Amino acid sequence: MKKVYLDHSATTRMDKRVFDAMMPYFRERFGNASSVHGFGQDAAKRVERARGQVAGFLKCDPEEVVFTSGATESNNLVLRGVTAALGKNGLEDMHVITSRIEHDSMLEPASELERRGIEVTYVDVRPNGVVDPKSVKRTIRETTVLVSIMYVNNEVGSIQPIKEIGHLINEENARRAGGAGRGRIYFHTDATQAVNFLDCNVGLNRVDLLSLSGHKIYGPKGVGALYVREGTVLAAQQLGGHHEKNRRSGTLNVPGIVGLGAAIGLLDPETVEKNVIQIAAVRDLLVEGILGSIPDVTLNTDRQVSTPAHAHFSFAGVDGESILIGLDMEGIAVSTGSACASMSDEPAPALLAMGIDPALARNSIRFTLGKNNTEAEIVRVLEVLPPIVKRLREISPAYRT
Amino acid sequence: MKKVYLDHSATTRMDKRVFDAMMPYFRERFGNASSVHGFGQDAAKRVERARGQVAGFLKCDPEEVVFTSGATESNNLVLRGVTAALGKNGLEDMHVITSRIEHDSMLEPASELERRGIEVTYVDVRPNGVVDPKSVKRTIRETTVLVSIMYVNNEVGSIQPIKEIGHLINEENARRAGGAGRGRIYFHTDATQAVNFLDCNVGLNRVDLLSLSGHKIYGPKGVGALYVREGTVLAAQQLGGHHEKNRRSGTLNVPGIVGLGAAIGLLDPETVEKNVIQIAAVRDLLVEGILGSIPDVTLNTDRQVSTPAHAHFSFAGVDGESILIGLDMEGIAVSTGSACASMSDEPAPALLAMGIDPALARNSIRFTLGKNNTEAEIVRVLEVLPPIVKRLREISPAYRT
Repeated sequence: MKKVYLDHSATTRMDKRVFDAMMPYFRERFGNASSVHGFGQDAAKRVERARGQVAGFLKCDPEEVVFTSGATESNNLVLRGVTAALGKNGLEDMHVITSRIEHDSMLEPASELERRGIEVTYVDVRPNGVVDPKSVKRTIRETTVLVSIMYVNNEVGSIQPIKEIGHLINEENARRAGGAGRGRIYFHTDATQAVNFLDCNVGLNRVDLLSLSGHKIYGPKGVGALYVREGTVLAAQQLGGHHEKNRRSGTLNVPGIVGLGAAIGLLDPETVEKNVIQIAAVRDLLVEGILGSIPDVTLNTDRQVSTPAHAHFSFAGVDGESILIGLDMEGIAVSTGSACASMSDEPAPALLAMGIDPALARNSIRFTLGKNNTEAEIVRVLEVLPPIVKRLREISPAYRT
Repeated sequence: MKKVYLDHSATTRMDKRVFDAMMPYFRERFGNASSVHGFGQDAAKRVERARGQVAGFLKCDPEEVVFTSGATESNNLVLRGVTAALGKNGLEDMHVITSRIEHDSMLEPASELERRGIEVTYVDVRPNGVVDPKSVKRTIRETTVLVSIMYVNNEVGSIQPIKEIGHLINEENARRAGGAGRGRIYFHTDATQAVNFLDCNVGLNRVDLLSLSGHKIYGPKGVGALYVREGTVLAAQQLGGHHEKNRRSGTLNVPGIVGLGAAIGLLDPETVEKNVIQIAAVRDLLVEGILGSIPDVTLNTDRQVSTPAHAHFSFAGVDGESILIGLDMEGIAVSTGSACASMSDEPAPALLAMGIDPALARNSIRFTLGKNNTEAEIVRVLEVLPPIVKRLREISPAYRT
């Protein structure tokens, strides 16, 4: 049975070119990039080339790129690192703004900040899953030090107005610069689900901090990056060794970093545009097929405001998990939502924030498409899925037509 | 020019068998181990097999093994995680014991604890680089909550009496259990440099927490583990997603974890014994050769109390860095000390703690041998090194015979 993978928001199959770039750094060129000798300097040079690839994509200085173990670490480092640094500088009252649709790696550290006495405001989203920049603006206080809004939601794929938010924070900072001065607001975006599709130019978008991950972009697991604009306060959270200019200690994961650089290097504007067109076409075939063949189904992804990868549905009266398992038995991989929340029975906070009924949220399946999906794969899904939903509904007490 | 790598404490060349074990998990079997579908479960099963390999080596329950991004993260997690968890439980006065010869990834988080008001005692070492268990015992107070003593020092290779320290802490805990009770002392060891050579049975050694790293044992960079004895308090430091049973969030680095398991799987007692004998023979050839051919040289490694990997020398009157560069130009890779401290001009704290004169400490070269080093390589080092030292001494104002 030919398998069909439609869970690209969870992880992606590494691109062969990324794999080829990484391979020499496991055994032949295995030096520790902090070592002074030739083995070390060979590794260090290659790390700097990868840093340049990331910087080229973000349009920033290579020195502003910090390699981490992944986006979860990057997000944790932002929330803890910025507030810890400001705390050390004597700032006591701090207010942080984020949204209700962030990934757990933002929401959980945010809860921890609250337990430490830092106020956190979670802005709402519109029913289409998009944060209104005005609601960010309304929420800013004199004590606000950090705003973190993800670039693309991992559940439904909604694109957030990062540039607008960046600019309004910039205006607020300009206003503050003229006043008594509590210092500026830093703006962070978790771009994990955006890198494949969207412009991540940190200057144009006016972001100070940006998280990204290797394995979501056909690169390796276990490696990510954090863009840190020069002058941004950030206290390292992993200490010992002063790697990454004192922002993140630990022996550099050379093959992983090489792979992350290579994966980003594949994302030139022409390729991205080609991918967007191709993936959107395949995704639309899936969406039209499902809407046309299965009754009582809701498309939670607003395609007008989302990346081409996402198609998030609720199938009334049927547990999402049951559909997932039914499809899995046919070799088709989908999810009910974030893999990082797969241990939880609760519906994703992002869906509830969009106003989706909790019962319907539990009926959800997230399809996330990638650059290697084909129309033939979708044809197969459309053969298999309708009878699965029909059969599950026949035995579901929750489904009454 | 055939290169000679003698910096195995910095990193090791991945074993071909580790590489082969990892390879399928980059592209063919690329699932996210948290995903419910077949791709995910395939990855999850393989992760659990690797966890079993680590547990088999440590002689612990697989559920007590937490995968991290490396030993630096593991060490940081211990110091922050244990004290944070106790703090949440209402404990205020806390005292931590560690040693003067720990790696930076222990010393720096320890300094941070001090800045937060936690008292830290750094026990001294004997001139041979070994902590006296009695000095640990003398230092224990009623408020002591954590003792962290590394298993093998990364600079000179001295083996610490972990089992004795584990047993004396155990006695102290038994005494406390009978008393008014502040709770127990947790015992952590950073075993990064020990895994290749020493028994890491956590039961026999009575350790509650143990850090290890993949790339020091012919495995991958970017992955490590922390053993956490059941019942040990530990607040996760990287949040979001509840991976690793709420002890460390973030998408699992499946290929890295597979590689770590495979690297540990190679360390059966027979292989370890064979490696120890072989490496010690090659190391001794180097030591005798240097001592026999170069005047005014001090061997800082006491071979009676050290692993077979280390041979740490001071060459009076010559900057270690100059020797390193001289050898590097001949294709021979050594270090002046920890790669993690290569950005620092200060002599390693461990050397100063051993009573080595700071000037002499700056004259140091650390040779660390591995399982693939040969006698022929040492013969070459012994041809090249004496003239380098002689030449450098001729131009050194600090060297007067």
